[in-house]
Amino acid sequence: MPKLLILAGDAEAYRALLEKEKLPDLELLSQPEAECELVLGTPKLIRAQLDALPRLKWAQSTWAGVEPLLDPALRRDYVLTNARGVFGGLMSEFVFGHLLYREKRIGEHAQAQKERRWEHDEVGMLCGKTIGLLGVGSIGARLAETAKFFGMRVRGYTRESESCAWVDEYYHGEHLLEFARELDYLVAVLPRTQDTYQIVDARLLATLPPRAVFVNVGRGNAVDEAALAEALRREQIAAAVLDVFDQEPLPADHPFWTTPNLRMTFHTSALSYPEDIARIFVENYFLYIQGAPLKYRVDFERGY
Amino acid sequence: MPKLLILAGDAEAYRALLEKEKLPDLELLSQPEAECELVLGTPKLIRAQLDALPRLKWAQSTWAGVEPLLDPALRRDYVLTNARGVFGGLMSEFVFGHLLYREKRIGEHAQAQKERRWEHDEVGMLCGKTIGLLGVGSIGARLAETAKFFGMRVRGYTRESESCAWVDEYYHGEHLLEFARELDYLVAVLPRTQDTYQIVDARLLATLPPRAVFVNVGRGNAVDEAALAEALRREQIAAAVLDVFDQEPLPADHPFWTTPNLRMTFHTSALSYPEDIARIFVENYFLYIQGAPLKYRVDFERGY
Repeated sequence: MPKLLILAGDAEAYRALLEKEKLPDLELLSQPEAECELVLGTPKLIRAQLDALPRLKWAQSTWAGVEPLLDPALRRDYVLTNARGVFGGLMSEFVFGHLLYREKRIGEHAQAQKERRWEHDEVGMLCGKTIGLLGVGSIGARLAETAKFFGMRVRGYTRESESCAWVDEYYHGEHLLEFARELDYLVAVLPRTQDTYQIVDARLLATLPPRAVFVNVGRGNAVDEAALAEALRREQIAAAVLDVFDQEPLPADHPFWTTPNLRMTFHTSALSYPEDIARIFVENYFLYIQGAPLKYRVDFERGY
Repeated sequence: MPKLLILAGDAEAYRALLEKEKLPDLELLSQPEAECELVLGTPKLIRAQLDALPRLKWAQSTWAGVEPLLDPALRRDYVLTNARGVFGGLMSEFVFGHLLYREKRIGEHAQAQKERRWEHDEVGMLCGKTIGLLGVGSIGARLAETAKFFGMRVRGYTRESESCAWVDEYYHGEHLLEFARELDYLVAVLPRTQDTYQIVDARLLATLPPRAVFVNVGRGNAVDEAALAEALRREQIAAAVLDVFDQEPLPADHPFWTTPNLRMTFHTSALSYPEDIARIFVENYFLYIQGAPLKYRVDFERGY
């Protein structure tokens, strides 16, 4: 009978959800035991217990990003699966909420109301504008679909994949600056890997048109933060919305807190919900007991 | 050769667009002439010229709402068509921009940034919530489609029509309060008619759950404004977003300017764009010269 260790802040929620499922032959643990084969939890908590789980065969991450487990010094003798397909909807609500906030001038209208000013001005629209997605995995694909729904043109920059039907034009490799030209919105949805390190740098930012808005909902290391602050100060681009940072929580003395036209949120664009993650675990558990390949398997080398 | 009088603030834009189309046999006028058959313009400006156009056969409104022309004292011996199908996209961007602004706590996060506070809290989501549409014409249908795209449940309240496939449950007539129960969002998209006068009254507002948010992008007369201000002050509902009012511009001493949890915009949710309206005119013009029935014809009795 496989034993599952649950390692998450909301472990009780996961326990309740999984008990309701009455999964065949599964025993739920709260403490590590030497013969424990399975673990479900946050990458950080799993990492801390790797040594206490010598028989670990499969770890299901509750998050999409699994950086703590990618350290080459750590063992890789188990199958690591992450959470996919559940964040796209949330991320899309977040990104398009912020895009529409700008287009519809919601902040300016609040100010006009405060001043009792009837401001019957034109507002902008997403329809007809161009969005560029840095990374088109399952989250990027949902962003592309939403952009098409709103009548936008969609460009995608990927390593080589061209599988998303909602992307109008794909770019790869050295064609990054070509991709960036004429974008109204640049949205980074990249995992943290070596290939994506500071891909948003001074040169890329200088290539964007001055009207462009940069949004980062992937990982902070994709951005040269000093170059971004400088581009915003010099009004090389119109604005940025950042949900992720090189260091989180953002240090109190970081220039981003007061960089002009920079809106920040707090890695809140898509929290993981136990209901969604438990559903992924259940699906994978049935594959596991049949000895079938698991879904959402992470390639330790590639990093996602 | 039919003569067309253009009566709009942006008449020059319309003239340029229509000249480019080289419509067969059409002469464009800037001043009324007795033999003028056709007029394209805002309902208010058309109304002012009705007496100067004895041979008027067809008037194309640049707006969806045509109230100034519905006065029973005015002649009705011409075909009146309005603008439809072009506002849905804009309205949908407006409405969902405001809904996402609330769910994603964009205002609260701006405040946290100001205070250098890392606020890693949960945010809400549209997915799974219930929206109720008061009125499901072409604009309501696009709102319904957008709500479904975001995974919402959609209720529609209409006179009798049940033609929109994106609506999950329809309500009519006396079932208004049933419709309102359990709504997270109530969005009014009603034209100004006698049937819709103050349909959003104290009783309807009291039926909504306390978490509900009311959005009005139709016409101001659909709302009992005093009852709405009172419901917001007493926190009977959570918030309101109003783009339209009984009297516009809103008088400087109107209580709405400072009603708690009331966000206003300034009849800016969907301005009409000459490109869109010219396209409707061109389409109808070809029908007109063939003697075929025109699209988007207004029923003077019904009011839309």
